[in-house]
Amino acid sequence: MQSWRLEVEYEGTRYAGWQRQPHARTAQGELARAAEEFWQARVEVGGSGRTDAGVHALRQVAHLRVRAGAKDVRPARLEAGLNALLPHDINVLRARPAPPAFDARRDAVARFYLYQIATRRTAFGKPFVWWVKDRLDVRAMSEAAAHVLGRHDFASFCESPETQSSTVVRVERVEVAARGRLILFRVGASHFLWKMVRRVVGALAEVGRGNLTPEDFRELLRGRSREPAAWTAPPSGLFLERVLYPGDPPPGELEPAFPVAD
Amino acid sequence: MQSWRLEVEYEGTRYAGWQRQPHARTAQGELARAAEEFWQARVEVGGSGRTDAGVHALRQVAHLRVRAGAKDVRPARLEAGLNALLPHDINVLRARPAPPAFDARRDAVARFYLYQIATRRTAFGKPFVWWVKDRLDVRAMSEAAAHVLGRHDFASFCESPETQSSTVVRVERVEVAARGRLILFRVGASHFLWKMVRRVVGALAEVGRGNLTPEDFRELLRGRSREPAAWTAPPSGLFLERVLYPGDPPPGELEPAFPVAD
Repeated sequence: MQSWRLEVEYEGTRYAGWQRQPHARTAQGELARAAEEFWQARVEVGGSGRTDAGVHALRQVAHLRVRAGAKDVRPARLEAGLNALLPHDINVLRARPAPPAFDARRDAVARFYLYQIATRRTAFGKPFVWWVKDRLDVRAMSEAAAHVLGRHDFASFCESPETQSSTVVRVERVEVAARGRLILFRVGASHFLWKMVRRVVGALAEVGRGNLTPEDFRELLRGRSREPAAWTAPPSGLFLERVLYPGDPPPGELEPAFPVAD
Repeated sequence: MQSWRLEVEYEGTRYAGWQRQPHARTAQGELARAAEEFWQARVEVGGSGRTDAGVHALRQVAHLRVRAGAKDVRPARLEAGLNALLPHDINVLRARPAPPAFDARRDAVARFYLYQIATRRTAFGKPFVWWVKDRLDVRAMSEAAAHVLGRHDFASFCESPETQSSTVVRVERVEVAARGRLILFRVGASHFLWKMVRRVVGALAEVGRGNLTPEDFRELLRGRSREPAAWTAPPSGLFLERVLYPGDPPPGELEPAFPVAD
């Protein structure tokens, strides 16, 4: 058996998310189709985690497993071969041989997500931002976001918490920063719950608007509330930024995926 | 009569260019439609110049003229009103009252264009770059580009030169720079000829590939040649970056319109 580790970027706009589905276009499905066409063989494809419809990935990590006897290829040949078979909005950045047991989801130790709020309308950025028309107080948002650090029960910020074995997540890193006419939010943790980032961002926008104080936000993290569900931020602004494996350095300076100038 | 000066950004992908046409969607046509709906009156719309199908504008300048008696509005109200009526990929950045005689084309004293070449495939940037698969020598491209400065006959780099009263253009500024996996080209002049920027970029890419030397490129500028027509770079990478009017400062540091990370 051959085993590969892939780093993949995709624009989520046209896809029903990462996870393969029988009757919808997905990033995993497109990658599996391309890999099977490339090798003319059955290929198992697994990602570090799901992304929802419309959510993007700057560097999703996936494994490929191909049966013994499939043709041997060099990494550059595999990258070019898959890219020639993939649609324009899915791109293999890097392919490397991996140990046979490498599992993109199980072996990952941290995920980082980036969220982009635009404070003005933009002709170019619609698929890549959430445009918030109200004036946002970035300092209050930063203050509230700091409460996310550490171990919390995110049941209030999670879709279908009853399906989770646990809704407790330890958040390792949180940043809020203004860049041009963008407000960027980055969060890192070992794992995330369904819609968790979008609900945290939605609640932070409520803080930015002055509808919640940073203390109200902290209370939401302590209690149980259905409110954050109503504030779920749209998928367009969300990017899976990085997935870390043992020994990987954390991501560097916070940079927009798509800048919005003054 | 009311007269307005507008700064407008648009993504050119879905449009047959700036210039209004009877049977095609154009940026000027959309702007005129929105303005006439806003005022419920006939509105004259003129731009600083045409852009071709698929070419973008970071800051096109246009004038609007509305007949006497049309409702008076404040700038912020006009900006919001037009944007509410415009498609998502056309955006009014700024509207200001203008002197009655203001003409966006005639009054402009300089135009700056930005061209983005990507040196890798990108899942996000396809509408905003020209992806060149061959390795490009940026230093040779810079050396060649410097020859564009000054007064030259660009007949070899112009579509339908016979329709021009003159094909001589004085280029005031040229820059080539690598930013991440982009090669940026910026050029400023009082005016440009049809397809001139895309043909200069196409010829510079030939220099980058090693198919032409910087001296060959200079010779193309001196003589008459049909070759540059065959090298015309695609519209996707081209942005009308700035239009200057008397007293406006030149554009600042060269920045990508859409970054492509390593």
